[in-house]
Amino acid sequence: MELTVGDLDEGALLARIFPRLADSKSVELGPGDDAAIVRGMGHRTVVSIDTQVQDQDFRLQWNNGYRSTGFDVGWKAAAQNMSDINAMGGTTTALVVSLTLPPSTPVAWVEDLADGLQAAISELAAGDCSVAGGDLSAGREISVTVAVLGALPGSEAVLRSGAKVGDVVAHCGNLGCAAAGWWLLEGSVPPAELTPEQSGLVELFARPRPPLAAGPIAAAAGASAMLDVSDGLVRDASRLARASGVAINLDFAALAALAAPLQKVAGAAGVDPHTWLLGGGEDHGLLCTFPANHPLPDGFTAIGSVVPGGERTPPVSIAGRAATTSGWDHFAD
Amino acid sequence: MELTVGDLDEGALLARIFPRLADSKSVELGPGDDAAIVRGMGHRTVVSIDTQVQDQDFRLQWNNGYRSTGFDVGWKAAAQNMSDINAMGGTTTALVVSLTLPPSTPVAWVEDLADGLQAAISELAAGDCSVAGGDLSAGREISVTVAVLGALPGSEAVLRSGAKVGDVVAHCGNLGCAAAGWWLLEGSVPPAELTPEQSGLVELFARPRPPLAAGPIAAAAGASAMLDVSDGLVRDASRLARASGVAINLDFAALAALAAPLQKVAGAAGVDPHTWLLGGGEDHGLLCTFPANHPLPDGFTAIGSVVPGGERTPPVSIAGRAATTSGWDHFAD
Repeated sequence: MELTVGDLDEGALLARIFPRLADSKSVELGPGDDAAIVRGMGHRTVVSIDTQVQDQDFRLQWNNGYRSTGFDVGWKAAAQNMSDINAMGGTTTALVVSLTLPPSTPVAWVEDLADGLQAAISELAAGDCSVAGGDLSAGREISVTVAVLGALPGSEAVLRSGAKVGDVVAHCGNLGCAAAGWWLLEGSVPPAELTPEQSGLVELFARPRPPLAAGPIAAAAGASAMLDVSDGLVRDASRLARASGVAINLDFAALAALAAPLQKVAGAAGVDPHTWLLGGGEDHGLLCTFPANHPLPDGFTAIGSVVPGGERTPPVSIAGRAATTSGWDHFAD
Repeated sequence: MELTVGDLDEGALLARIFPRLADSKSVELGPGDDAAIVRGMGHRTVVSIDTQVQDQDFRLQWNNGYRSTGFDVGWKAAAQNMSDINAMGGTTTALVVSLTLPPSTPVAWVEDLADGLQAAISELAAGDCSVAGGDLSAGREISVTVAVLGALPGSEAVLRSGAKVGDVVAHCGNLGCAAAGWWLLEGSVPPAELTPEQSGLVELFARPRPPLAAGPIAAAAGASAMLDVSDGLVRDASRLARASGVAINLDFAALAALAAPLQKVAGAAGVDPHTWLLGGGEDHGLLCTFPANHPLPDGFTAIGSVVPGGERTPPVSIAGRAATTSGWDHFAD
């Protein structure tokens, strides 16, 4: 019989989780007391929180037969939270994790989740970071909440509100890959029959790889505004534009170049890859604006420019025409 | 028809929540960007996280007819998290809050929850503190996760592991009140028929009042160990004793004095009030140890002493006899 969470008391479950988590210098005092103590830089801490709920934010079972592993869920919870610190120009110092688990949850699944959390921290995090503490609760559905703390290596955070007319709009990281992976998971081709390229896209959906070193680098390079692309390029660019009181004009050729690597998979699926590029989220790349005279840091690609906003100006356009999340409605005029 | 969460989009729901939350100087940048920025003291941040799940950690409907309000749930979520910072000797600087809500949740209940969060911060918090950010998710059950950040006004945190043989064991805050309130909620007397004293105990269960100024005061007064009593005096004293490698002997007369105010309600219920005092949790008072030659700060009551531990020594005893969570089993020998 498979061991489930309901078979163990809290202490026994924690004893299986803790050895899977590494220490770090940032965490002066880890799990075991009323609270943890996290070292930072200066007197400011960057903080964010995010919850993933089973069947809402993640599925255990997909249409094509793929089963989300605990590793996937743990990785994604860590990655997307660390991305929020990255998007402020910060480095992650600590995560605190609250797990709500039905008693029927296999213990092995929870151990796998801990491994996924730790793997994301070890493989992605640019700074020194570890899980500082957490909480276990019972519930009817699996829910994973991560609160993430970060330090600002530069003196100032980069907000989404600082874009200026004339700035270059640039992107770093994957774009459209997670959306393509999601499309494949929702399709009918079972995981074992996917091509290596298709499997790679599924992997980037299941275990996104935000460019966690790039945020502080962009901040040091003079980025005027920054956010992470979690809900899709057009939607997140609109947020940046609105917060900054400007508009963003994306470059047709730059987008086409980004879409090209997705063309083969998209073509086989009968999908325009721009749909994934413009509307898909969860890649957690960085959308930045830089003053036009600043050289872009390595890894950043110019994809547009900041233009004047206004009531009658769409917040995001592509080659001067209003963009939508599917991207091309207005090109069909 | 009652407006529910499913009737609003995220922005509209947030627009109803934000005006209910106050600003503070500790939060340099609040909700609206990828992450929040919290000011602290020095380079260290104290952090903890805790989730309350509907029907596990709180009930919406009690046996005696009481209905937990959103205000209750918000208050309790804030209070018990802030208590963890208090128990390190820290002051709370910021909360980040993640709400998982079924679409059928009344919007008024969520607004009430925001009011409860803010009221607990305003009425209880010793320091300058506010809600710095949060997250909204859909789910099948209500779940409230709070991660709390704090600063250490003293140079060192007070851990649960520092108790020394000969130290005085002291307590600050309520003890047994929440357990008495819980007992009344589980009883058959409807809320309207409770005496004012009984209603006061229900209130202390629904909206606990941890002594949030007392943690930093105890730290400054030289407390050698400290934790908050969330799971009951005997259970939490055992944790402190085990972490410190000592044992704790509670004083019979001191416990009797603490039990006396509960005697009337307990007597009417046919319950020994020591059961509530020793086994009941959720009052979130502070259990501290102080060197014997240190005067106790205001608000602290001596309830025992630290004695040598050992394999054959029970971690917590009362007048030299092993204590249990119900307290008196061993007195029936």
